[in-house]
Amino acid sequence: MNYEHIFDQAIERLHSEGRYRVFIDILRNKGAYPNARCFAGHNGPKPITVWCSNDYLAMGQHPKVIEAMEEALHDVGAGSGGTRNIGGNTHYHIELESELADLLGKEGALLFTSGYVSNDATLSTLAKLLPGCVIFSDELNHASMIAGIRNSGCEKKVFRHNDLEHLEELLAATDPETPKLIAFESVYSMDGDIAPIHAICDLADKYNALTYIDEVHAVGMYGPRGGGITDRDEAAHRIDIIEGTLGKAFGVMGGYIAADQKVIDCIRSYAPGFIFTTSLSPVLVAGVLASVKHLKSSNEEREGQQRSAAMLKQMFRDAGLPVMNSTTHIVPLMVGDPVKAKAISDILLAEYGAYVQPINFPTVPRGTERLRFTPGPAHTEEMMRELTGALVEIWERMEMKLAA
Amino acid sequence: MNYEHIFDQAIERLHSEGRYRVFIDILRNKGAYPNARCFAGHNGPKPITVWCSNDYLAMGQHPKVIEAMEEALHDVGAGSGGTRNIGGNTHYHIELESELADLLGKEGALLFTSGYVSNDATLSTLAKLLPGCVIFSDELNHASMIAGIRNSGCEKKVFRHNDLEHLEELLAATDPETPKLIAFESVYSMDGDIAPIHAICDLADKYNALTYIDEVHAVGMYGPRGGGITDRDEAAHRIDIIEGTLGKAFGVMGGYIAADQKVIDCIRSYAPGFIFTTSLSPVLVAGVLASVKHLKSSNEEREGQQRSAAMLKQMFRDAGLPVMNSTTHIVPLMVGDPVKAKAISDILLAEYGAYVQPINFPTVPRGTERLRFTPGPAHTEEMMRELTGALVEIWERMEMKLAA
Repeated sequence: MNYEHIFDQAIERLHSEGRYRVFIDILRNKGAYPNARCFAGHNGPKPITVWCSNDYLAMGQHPKVIEAMEEALHDVGAGSGGTRNIGGNTHYHIELESELADLLGKEGALLFTSGYVSNDATLSTLAKLLPGCVIFSDELNHASMIAGIRNSGCEKKVFRHNDLEHLEELLAATDPETPKLIAFESVYSMDGDIAPIHAICDLADKYNALTYIDEVHAVGMYGPRGGGITDRDEAAHRIDIIEGTLGKAFGVMGGYIAADQKVIDCIRSYAPGFIFTTSLSPVLVAGVLASVKHLKSSNEEREGQQRSAAMLKQMFRDAGLPVMNSTTHIVPLMVGDPVKAKAISDILLAEYGAYVQPINFPTVPRGTERLRFTPGPAHTEEMMRELTGALVEIWERMEMKLAA
Repeated sequence: MNYEHIFDQAIERLHSEGRYRVFIDILRNKGAYPNARCFAGHNGPKPITVWCSNDYLAMGQHPKVIEAMEEALHDVGAGSGGTRNIGGNTHYHIELESELADLLGKEGALLFTSGYVSNDATLSTLAKLLPGCVIFSDELNHASMIAGIRNSGCEKKVFRHNDLEHLEELLAATDPETPKLIAFESVYSMDGDIAPIHAICDLADKYNALTYIDEVHAVGMYGPRGGGITDRDEAAHRIDIIEGTLGKAFGVMGGYIAADQKVIDCIRSYAPGFIFTTSLSPVLVAGVLASVKHLKSSNEEREGQQRSAAMLKQMFRDAGLPVMNSTTHIVPLMVGDPVKAKAISDILLAEYGAYVQPINFPTVPRGTERLRFTPGPAHTEEMMRELTGALVEIWERMEMKLAA
């Protein structure tokens, strides 16, 4: 057994496929985001514009969020000091859970250290509580949902992306007495399309299945109060468990589920990923609380983001760039090759100070490597013109095709 | 299929076993910890003393930590905005990883959102990279290690707690050509005993096994620079992967591993629990950085904690209370019954303003329910006298046995 050799080979596979990842070393400039500093190279930090952040609404620099975090930091200190059960259950946690339950129209909510953990812990625990459960999973579900489903040990049936006929076919072929759970996302973040939520709920009703939706790329950004696509489509009451994140539109960190109180109580009591971990820092929780409250009543950020996304898509289209068919705030540009995607990203950063990360396998399927832009309310028209110009120049330099 | 009924039954099981958990609603008082406010009851917050926090050295309120977090909050904002690969790799993350690698005497380190995730993600990924790997796991390993091992899907052989003979027996019975990993903790947090690290490493050498140690309850607190028991025992170079937390002695939140660069690179590149999650808030990372740096050169907090722990153990022993045989900073008091443990905890909080959570299944085996005290440098002799007096009174009130 030569362990070193095995590790070497594992790294070598990534290099040979052109998908070895290099993390870009940055610091964002609070108050001036999307401006940031990049520490790559050797001439000290260099100013850049961030185009790939999931801080979609720039809430990570919102004065109310910063103020709330500063206040909590000075009132209660840095960390929670324990699990939710042992010393780490602060008043902030309880307030935020109640705020999220209200936002999502559910009886209760439960905080996790991340969206990843909320999916993994909830799905794996839920399926264990339901003997013989079968999970119906959209083929494009996020890695954290796939982890939770696999870790549950239960049977999984994958349906083609957003394909209602295929989902129904699979449901109909399963014993009516078997517990069933349909797990899907609202906004699929790498393509930017949206699930047919009501139609999926109709099937769940027909076949007596529970429903689980991941709203991490929608919460804060859609619906009159920012409750997500389920808020916009008035579908929250039809979904059994709504999962989301506090680290994207809300601008901070953490994850949650919202559901009936008894489901919350079960996950709270049985999920190792919830029970055996230090709870979120109260500083973070205080920041999220301010962010959620603000976005419940302010539409300015949501409208600004939609405007920016529409504008950038139009500019890309007008320039003949291969913008993918997204119906949301996400602006993906298809490249289809990991080496080219990385090369374009490298040139953008080095020559134009524009930071957008190449997206490669395993985040997207091989052969669909892309650049994914997330313009927000703080990105200006001028920034977008510069970016589009840069991309056209690079596309031509690399002899890639532009539409007529 | 009646889903509600299944959830009801799951909750009912907890009530009937007397282990339904009620989270105590508190806020700590920064600068005056272990003093805190408790929101239970209806007469507004009530002052309490916290006896069960894992903020072992009170670093969560250290001025250097608070200052560093405040500075980061105003410099870069609330959250990181993305995964480490996509926009969430801040200069703070890189600095902290380098600081941790130095502290632990390893080539590299890798941050995770929690200690739980670092164990789960690393163990499950490591075992998948090593074809046919067998994991040798101490029977008292933490839930997060058990999760990682189970999620790896590989064969697990459990050895009796700290039992070298049993471990060797299992190693010897396994094909020499099979990849092997021995996973254990340094300080076992619910009993307070320590693993024979060098002897385990001797066996690892003899049978060509990798070693993985969890130092979450030791890092910051043992060794001349706070590197943990591996630092104290000069064993870090013999361990392949050292895992730890940023949420206990360091006072903030998060987890890490430290290892050879190629192992770090493998986990960084292959672990879904690392790849697909928003990175730690830079505010937290800045706080941890200050905490690690401080504890590298200051022994004051470590010595204060050891003094407090020794004093409280002595007082408990002198009073005839059933203090367990801990060789560390942890002071567990055996009760052996979940209902009694909860009753004692309730009385302590309601009548004496002393907060210690009862520890029950699944955190400890059934029949070994206990109270677990974690006195630190900020707990005074006067506080300990009051606590001991209160416990003796309650022990007598409940007609439980005190030693002569």
